[in-house]
Amino acid sequence: MERLSLNQMTTKHWSLAEAVDGCVRAGLGSIGLWREPVAETGLAAAAKLVADAGLRVSSLCRGGFLTAEEPGARAEALADNRRAIDEAAALGAPCLVMVVGGLPAGSKDLPGARARVLDALGELAPYAGERGVRLALEPLHPMYCADRAVLSTLRQALDWAERFPAGQVGVVVDTFHLWWDPEAIGQIARAGDRIASYQVCDFLTPLPADVLLGRGMMGEGHVDFRPFTEAVLAAGYTGDIEVELFNAEVWATPGDEVLATMKQRYLELVV
Amino acid sequence: MERLSLNQMTTKHWSLAEAVDGCVRAGLGSIGLWREPVAETGLAAAAKLVADAGLRVSSLCRGGFLTAEEPGARAEALADNRRAIDEAAALGAPCLVMVVGGLPAGSKDLPGARARVLDALGELAPYAGERGVRLALEPLHPMYCADRAVLSTLRQALDWAERFPAGQVGVVVDTFHLWWDPEAIGQIARAGDRIASYQVCDFLTPLPADVLLGRGMMGEGHVDFRPFTEAVLAAGYTGDIEVELFNAEVWATPGDEVLATMKQRYLELVV
Repeated sequence: MERLSLNQMTTKHWSLAEAVDGCVRAGLGSIGLWREPVAETGLAAAAKLVADAGLRVSSLCRGGFLTAEEPGARAEALADNRRAIDEAAALGAPCLVMVVGGLPAGSKDLPGARARVLDALGELAPYAGERGVRLALEPLHPMYCADRAVLSTLRQALDWAERFPAGQVGVVVDTFHLWWDPEAIGQIARAGDRIASYQVCDFLTPLPADVLLGRGMMGEGHVDFRPFTEAVLAAGYTGDIEVELFNAEVWATPGDEVLATMKQRYLELVV
Repeated sequence: MERLSLNQMTTKHWSLAEAVDGCVRAGLGSIGLWREPVAETGLAAAAKLVADAGLRVSSLCRGGFLTAEEPGARAEALADNRRAIDEAAALGAPCLVMVVGGLPAGSKDLPGARARVLDALGELAPYAGERGVRLALEPLHPMYCADRAVLSTLRQALDWAERFPAGQVGVVVDTFHLWWDPEAIGQIARAGDRIASYQVCDFLTPLPADVLLGRGMMGEGHVDFRPFTEAVLAAGYTGDIEVELFNAEVWATPGDEVLATMKQRYLELVV
């Protein structure tokens, strides 16, 4: 239970202070933060809140969106990512989760978009490394390739990460995004110490009308979690195990209930 | 234009006879058939209709659904696939498109489901080969892994197909399912004469509430078709190029209009 982390998006209706209190009440060791609620609280106040509660920060969501072609938009994206890295450092987050971005509006040039992400990582990786923050490349489910992330598989994420020192660029293993991939388990073994974050979440069918909200509580969908956990641990991962759901029904449930279910399912299905 | 084929699902509102007439009016050389409308017309009558019109049959949809665990359900699936192979042979279809099936209800054993598909292919492949029909394994977009097909990438399809003689088992290259895959173009080169069918279709966002209906007319979505066509032709594919859309708006459009748009987009974007 000490490694279980609440990604604060799972209890979206809670403020940061409420989420921190909820984690403490539930006996969790860690919390995954998002930039927007941290900004609402104020960066220094947020860092103090979490530290005073004795919680670790498992990750900060999110940087990325690095596919813009237009020089001004690209410069703004790089500047925003540097700010996100600074925030991760101030919060003591070991990694910044990177959702790399989809195709620019109207573009069909997928290889071009991918090349621009790699190019931007070349600028951001040393900046992150110098501040003790790892960029955690998150392969997203292929259904988000057009509008969210042109990075879709763990193999592809590792091909990119391995161009940089392991201390600068790692990967996220998220069961929702990877569960279908026949290569996932093998690529987790390849990843070794590149695994910067392990996130658990179930894949629901039918997908809801907003496909971003198909991220369900463990046990509600199709994912067999234990092979993923075993592979991640066998690869040497010693970090936290984060539960990140985007789910209208979960968001309508009182936070303490969500955490109680999450703990139960974690013990039953994940570890 | 001689290689352009109408998959009859694109004009779902047309009967088989209407679709055949529409193809002839539009100057197409080929049609892709589905079992249900063929059965409505009668197998022999359908074969005669198409042959009398001077059209080739580019493919028959579909066999598959081979993941059942229960022996009775499994035997029925095998028997149904043998009937589908017989139908493809009677229609002169060079291949039977195989949608392999998703997880059985309540099961989370993805490796088990995949193993059962492979096992079933071992029974069906020689039967198909003896009748001059190729089983065309179709990797489906990963968003359908749970409920439609535990076969998700071209690499995985080729890993399976290569266990059998090339005359017995090939693969389908469908741009809707594969466009996101950073390995797709490379795997098409690997596929060579394993390519049994090439289907073009665009990927729309936002996905409609029924994600099966996100298959759009070329030019309406995110797919860059030419690199796929070039790779398929460079791999040595000499068969037809089939347009298969599942799309409520297209289905509400008069068939002759759909074919006119399809021809125009084919010339502008595909070849």
